[in-house]
Amino acid sequence: MSVRLEADERDQSLRELVENGWTLNDVQDTINKTFKFDDFNSAFGFMTRVALLAEKLKHHPEWTNIYNKVDVKLTTHDLKALSKSDVQMALFMDHIYVTIGD
Amino acid sequence: MSVRLEADERDQSLRELVENGWTLNDVQDTINKTFKFDDFNSAFGFMTRVALLAEKLKHHPEWTNIYNKVDVKLTTHDLKALSKSDVQMALFMDHIYVTIGD
Repeated sequence: MSVRLEADERDQSLRELVENGWTLNDVQDTINKTFKFDDFNSAFGFMTRVALLAEKLKHHPEWTNIYNKVDVKLTTHDLKALSKSDVQMALFMDHIYVTIGD
Repeated sequence: MSVRLEADERDQSLRELVENGWTLNDVQDTINKTFKFDDFNSAFGFMTRVALLAEKLKHHPEWTNIYNKVDVKLTTHDLKALSKSDVQMALFMDHIYVTIGD
């Protein structure tokens, strides 16, 4: 079940995420980021860790992988807006990127 | 090391792949296919099996995953053309799709 972000929480979360390299598309209400790794192995390792959380949350990213790069788009289709799950996924990606990324 | 496809081999391989749902983009010399699954779990399972072969062959797809769909593009950048590895990857994807896909 998708949970809306309250206005204050949204503002604060987005401020932090944008500081950390996420881009807000406020037409589609998506957040987007490109993660770059040493090689495909690290990029796919990152995707695998994210996939496990995505299954747990029942909330899945839209993402493209080309060799060492992963382009991620997050949004919540049933709300047509960003939700708490998008923020949770984004924070998790940033967190594990520190351990896997270059 | 990328290995070029001889003309006859290329014609035959492409004929078979196109019959199996691959699209040839002859401007970029890529082959493309969308694989559709029951859910994200199956789609990412497919990607994981393909990733292991990609690492073994040192030949990686360009791919986008949105929930239960995986869009794949194959080409060989150092040849700027399709190679034996592209055909091998495409055949492997079609093979395992039979066991995972819907």
